[in-house]
Amino acid sequence: MTKPLGFEKPLGMRDYLPDLLWKQRQIEEKLHRCMLHWGYQEILTPTLEYYDTVGEASATHDSKLFKLLDKQGRTLVLRPDVTAPIARVASSLLKDEPRPLRLMYNTNVFRAQEKEAGRNAEFTQAGVELIGDPSVEADAEVIALAVACLKEAGLEEFKIAIGHVGFIEGLLEEVVPEKSDRDQLKERLHNSDYVGFRQDIEALNISEDEKQRLRGILKLRGGATRLEDAEALTINGRARRAVRNLKELWAALQAYDVTDYVMFDLNLLSSLNYYTGILFEGYAANQGFPICGGGRYDDLFKQFGMDNPSTGFAIKMDRLIQSSDLQPTQEKKTIYIRFDQETRNLALKRAMLLRKEAIVVTGIGEPSQAFDQIIDFRGGHEDV
Amino acid sequence: MTKPLGFEKPLGMRDYLPDLLWKQRQIEEKLHRCMLHWGYQEILTPTLEYYDTVGEASATHDSKLFKLLDKQGRTLVLRPDVTAPIARVASSLLKDEPRPLRLMYNTNVFRAQEKEAGRNAEFTQAGVELIGDPSVEADAEVIALAVACLKEAGLEEFKIAIGHVGFIEGLLEEVVPEKSDRDQLKERLHNSDYVGFRQDIEALNISEDEKQRLRGILKLRGGATRLEDAEALTINGRARRAVRNLKELWAALQAYDVTDYVMFDLNLLSSLNYYTGILFEGYAANQGFPICGGGRYDDLFKQFGMDNPSTGFAIKMDRLIQSSDLQPTQEKKTIYIRFDQETRNLALKRAMLLRKEAIVVTGIGEPSQAFDQIIDFRGGHEDV
Repeated sequence: MTKPLGFEKPLGMRDYLPDLLWKQRQIEEKLHRCMLHWGYQEILTPTLEYYDTVGEASATHDSKLFKLLDKQGRTLVLRPDVTAPIARVASSLLKDEPRPLRLMYNTNVFRAQEKEAGRNAEFTQAGVELIGDPSVEADAEVIALAVACLKEAGLEEFKIAIGHVGFIEGLLEEVVPEKSDRDQLKERLHNSDYVGFRQDIEALNISEDEKQRLRGILKLRGGATRLEDAEALTINGRARRAVRNLKELWAALQAYDVTDYVMFDLNLLSSLNYYTGILFEGYAANQGFPICGGGRYDDLFKQFGMDNPSTGFAIKMDRLIQSSDLQPTQEKKTIYIRFDQETRNLALKRAMLLRKEAIVVTGIGEPSQAFDQIIDFRGGHEDV
Repeated sequence: MTKPLGFEKPLGMRDYLPDLLWKQRQIEEKLHRCMLHWGYQEILTPTLEYYDTVGEASATHDSKLFKLLDKQGRTLVLRPDVTAPIARVASSLLKDEPRPLRLMYNTNVFRAQEKEAGRNAEFTQAGVELIGDPSVEADAEVIALAVACLKEAGLEEFKIAIGHVGFIEGLLEEVVPEKSDRDQLKERLHNSDYVGFRQDIEALNISEDEKQRLRGILKLRGGATRLEDAEALTINGRARRAVRNLKELWAALQAYDVTDYVMFDLNLLSSLNYYTGILFEGYAANQGFPICGGGRYDDLFKQFGMDNPSTGFAIKMDRLIQSSDLQPTQEKKTIYIRFDQETRNLALKRAMLLRKEAIVVTGIGEPSQAFDQIIDFRGGHEDV
């Protein structure tokens, strides 16, 4: 193998140069303040975790994990998501804190890439976890907070698409007897392969009525009226409870006045298999990929020995930054102070004073870039 | 090997809980603003780098590197320091930007730990690099900026100890013929093993006069008058040029009015072997370990194919936070709004309004923690 050249970076790794990072920091600050005002407190977990704890709980596919061995021979992973590490902390260091517990984060996560495909192997996520609250009020709170965050970050046109794990799974359980068939249908939906979904249905050994019910799933995208259509497809049991849960959610979202930003998509399934109830994804008008995703995970904490029904979301910062119309606010006035040996003391003292309000660079030579103002101390007199 | 328990973290890894992280974020914000006002722009490099590029340039001992293989079989390292990756970026993506280039960063770095010794394997560093300026003005600027940052971060009693690689190396080259002897003497100084240093000198086959000169190094700690003592030990060449360089530095630091925070320590050597000139460490009155370190590295860029004499420093955030007297500013007023099904709309709308100024948590149940104010909407009337 040839040695990498001096300027090369590993696959999927990025450098953030000042202009882009400046915009990112401003958006991060806005998200932080928004989440703070909803009562969430920031937490930070380490980059490395044990494969046997957080790696397994994270629901990230094994082939996407960055793995390494520590000096004791144990397998470590680079943080593949944030929800599982936070569940670890909330069920250990924070296990005696009263519930519900509201935590937020803003950190990097890692997904190994097979080959160059323009996908980042390291990216920043900002999000919240609302831990130990099983109510639909909690689901509504995190969705309303996601809307508030996206607006705060300068996103103008976007929609949160909401689905329910219990609806798809419940309906399939009612109609399709074989688990392998159900799994394949879910895979089709997850991949938005609707042609394949219809073909699979045709091949099933069930009545035409029941096939019709399954095909009906594909039409369940749109406003709140879709919930009536969804309910009509269910008989009772899990799928019907899911629809009722979504109706309660809708009522709560009306109270938050965010329904303009919300639609239902009962085809929605996540690649994260720890979701157990309501789940959602946020899309900007100008992007095909979701900017944020979240949902209810009532079972994840059981892997850490606690019963803490929870809900939350994560925003993908790079996608948000691309979609945001936010113009980074003008930096402060920039000043270059030029001096020589005789005037150094005066010049540097003036610089210290001006730095309370402005960006000040000092130097002996020509300014190397454009400045709003140049103050020239050379020759013993100040020449503004 | 037994499986780690669910709550366990890898050796040297830490969770940052809200109270501590809140203080850290406030200090980071102050450092960021301080560096910004001195004309530095933030940059962020990836967590993973090639071992053959940044890993080699970083000067971190191989046993301290976290290594892993990528899917192509190349060895990667978790960022062991920030200066080497920034040199990579400055000599590639930013190679056409005018010099001097002023960059700052605030990010995590990694050092593998052999065994539990209370040392962090991942920690945050904030710092600057002033790239492409060979002058002593540049060294003075970064030292004065380090002082400004530490003051800004709430540190009251601290000292920056300044040394010079050229002084120790030059003097040893003048007096000690064998490189292996010189290396051992440097190792003694680096480990503050002054007894061993004296013993090694005794064993050398050089005149008593020259032994006396070498022992004189140990006395070169203190104020600017030590520079006269240092000059008296030198004959000419590299060591004497180093002392003259330090005298020029002192004059420039007087112009910045920071000499109260500065002392000289001509025994100072760094474990980072890329320093080539002035180098320094900052100590708080209440801590034995340096809080920050920096210096001039005129050769590092040659590994990336450029000639860019540079200087900079890094602050260790965890040590700074421990030493800082800064009291995190009071968070905003906290309010709990309690509601029932009938009053939900009113309560949630009120919450949205109040969140412009306060931290507002809403809920149906008893408040789970202390709040500055509780607004109870239940029963149809607002009860403050």
